[in-house]
Amino acid sequence: MFQVSGEGMLMVTARAPTNIAVIKYWGKRDESLILPINDSISVTLDPDHLCTTTTVAVSPNFESDRMWLNGKEISLSGGRYQSCLKEIRQQAGDVIDENKGICIKGEDWQKLHVHIASYNNFPTAAGLASSAAGFACLVYALSKLMNVKEQYELSAIARQGSGSACRSLYGGFVKWAMGNDVNGSDSIAIQLARETHWSDLVILIAVVSSHQKEISSTTGMRESVETSELLLQRSQNIVPKRIKQMEEAIRNRDFTTFAKLTSADSNQFHAVCLDTSPPIFYMNNTSHRIINCIERWNQSEGTPQVSYTFDAGPNAVMFAPNRKVASLLLQRLLFYFPPLPGDDLSSFVIGDQSILQEAGIGSMKDVQSLSPPPETKDSKFLSKHGGSVSYFICTRPGRGPELRAHGDALIHPQTGLPK
Amino acid sequence: MFQVSGEGMLMVTARAPTNIAVIKYWGKRDESLILPINDSISVTLDPDHLCTTTTVAVSPNFESDRMWLNGKEISLSGGRYQSCLKEIRQQAGDVIDENKGICIKGEDWQKLHVHIASYNNFPTAAGLASSAAGFACLVYALSKLMNVKEQYELSAIARQGSGSACRSLYGGFVKWAMGNDVNGSDSIAIQLARETHWSDLVILIAVVSSHQKEISSTTGMRESVETSELLLQRSQNIVPKRIKQMEEAIRNRDFTTFAKLTSADSNQFHAVCLDTSPPIFYMNNTSHRIINCIERWNQSEGTPQVSYTFDAGPNAVMFAPNRKVASLLLQRLLFYFPPLPGDDLSSFVIGDQSILQEAGIGSMKDVQSLSPPPETKDSKFLSKHGGSVSYFICTRPGRGPELRAHGDALIHPQTGLPK
Repeated sequence: MFQVSGEGMLMVTARAPTNIAVIKYWGKRDESLILPINDSISVTLDPDHLCTTTTVAVSPNFESDRMWLNGKEISLSGGRYQSCLKEIRQQAGDVIDENKGICIKGEDWQKLHVHIASYNNFPTAAGLASSAAGFACLVYALSKLMNVKEQYELSAIARQGSGSACRSLYGGFVKWAMGNDVNGSDSIAIQLARETHWSDLVILIAVVSSHQKEISSTTGMRESVETSELLLQRSQNIVPKRIKQMEEAIRNRDFTTFAKLTSADSNQFHAVCLDTSPPIFYMNNTSHRIINCIERWNQSEGTPQVSYTFDAGPNAVMFAPNRKVASLLLQRLLFYFPPLPGDDLSSFVIGDQSILQEAGIGSMKDVQSLSPPPETKDSKFLSKHGGSVSYFICTRPGRGPELRAHGDALIHPQTGLPK
Repeated sequence: MFQVSGEGMLMVTARAPTNIAVIKYWGKRDESLILPINDSISVTLDPDHLCTTTTVAVSPNFESDRMWLNGKEISLSGGRYQSCLKEIRQQAGDVIDENKGICIKGEDWQKLHVHIASYNNFPTAAGLASSAAGFACLVYALSKLMNVKEQYELSAIARQGSGSACRSLYGGFVKWAMGNDVNGSDSIAIQLARETHWSDLVILIAVVSSHQKEISSTTGMRESVETSELLLQRSQNIVPKRIKQMEEAIRNRDFTTFAKLTSADSNQFHAVCLDTSPPIFYMNNTSHRIINCIERWNQSEGTPQVSYTFDAGPNAVMFAPNRKVASLLLQRLLFYFPPLPGDDLSSFVIGDQSILQEAGIGSMKDVQSLSPPPETKDSKFLSKHGGSVSYFICTRPGRGPELRAHGDALIHPQTGLPK
């Protein structure tokens, strides 16, 4: 796992997944420690489709901490990076390998500088929780480089980079317990179940085209805490109940309850955003149309076939209980939100493309000849909106962070700079 | 006021205003009596710009109750019409004029049939509270025809036609007290102030183009009562406080408080709609853009210049403290939401068109040469959306229902049918 170059450079490469909350985090009780006002629960997404890869390197020759994101140097001076770097150095252990001539004592890390190179396998600006994967990966990689013993403390460190990053330190189904401690030591992530516990679950993401500039979630949740008269009711009385119900639904692989809670909690989070002054709109007409499409289907079947959730942006993340239902969902979505003429199907539906085959769709012509969903009787609901979804990603619950082979390193072992 | 034709027909014509709630009514505690779960407050709109005109006629020759809306016969068999007709007949008094040979005893009204013709001076389907004006006008006109003594009971009758209709029985600023009585006798409208109390106020309505079919407010509020976990918090703990604050703001003509409460309460009502299962969306991208335009302006000035409110549809109703500020608002709205090329300015801004002159806009060319609002620094917010507003209506607080001259009658005095 460790790599030593000619210049005495030590390097670790890791990747970490994104996650999508099914019971939402919205509102901090402590802005700088990033302590939330309620528990939240998320599903970790398969890193094969959505992940951050990060290489961290240390060398006595490095003159300062530096970082590159997708090849471009970015500043580490922000409080959130500084908190993570400071906290992880405090936990650093000895790294000694006499054969390789390495001897770094725990306290040495305070003086050594690191170089960090990070890369997302998905568009950073698309609103797909890149900061969650990014901070989880940074903290995980540094903990391996610095031989941090207390792995369970990592989520409390990643949390200080980006709240939801703490949940990306585990695979499968994860709870972020809000905790009580004023210093945040018990505001940590806990794995509820591994990804293999509910392996039938299929996750479909619609990346929605948007020309609106959205308010950041940090600013948005601060304004909600300050001005929404409904948020406290949610965080104190509604979420605690839903957390218990969601834990049980996941334990029992009870898709009906899981789906109802997921959609209802997403809608309530966006309701609180609307109740904020000035009001916050993350969903747009396309988001609303996706919801209406799913709700009409679910209503016609009498029980939830699929569910949806939206974070601080217009993208929809949808859950289906199995591949068969996922293919029925994909048929509906492609009917309403087809690619633009000239688009390529294989770049319009990415990730686990076998769902396309399951849906019997092999070409653009198959998309064009899709029938209207049978539950759609009113012709008002038959208009198509080509181009309003940029692309779809088919994925599933996935693993937590893991180390990668030397060949995946993003930093050049001689220069200490991004490859 | 009474008109007797050769066939012994008696006729009354009246008009009644629409109203816009500034503290919203959403949710019934009794579906058939239409008793709300919280008080609401509205502003009555000038009937010169938005009103229903209704003629009611009675004759011993009429064989059944019949009604025509905008010239087309509609059924009176619905429970809401039946409730209003039944209740008003119970209150009916003697109509005796020996000179004219009229003698109808109070109890006679139970056997006599009425013909009703009604006409809106604005598009019925545009989501401009046509049912409020319609039921208020129907009940008011019948009360005059039937010589109902207890005028204060009319609002409780109109309420059973359409909840918000009770508020259209008064001009100016009106509270609908939810009441406690199980039979609804104290769920009535009360005038807080006449329209002349705050005559500087200018009201601008944007009729927003929409291709979506919205859920009716009756169905929507039933589903909110059944499924929203936030509605009770709103109706029990938030609205009572806001009602007191709004009453005081109106009393003091305190525009800052009035504006903050109006916008916040509209947003909270739509938040509750989103928290409903399935979620209800009444506002669309255009509605969101109007809100963002106003919020950016208010934020840049540090204090609310104007406020907005949305009912069960995408139309915006905006309040300005005076004509000067209203003209600044109209300039902003016409910059972002210009008419389509070929549209006529005089049919794009209707109602009190003198606000256009106040804004220095006399032609389509003036609209095209409007400068971007000075608070708009980010070019992201400069895109125009021609055609997304169908037209604007400039109006003001207005009078309650009133009788109209014989010449305005909508029923032919010989045939008893619509003219």
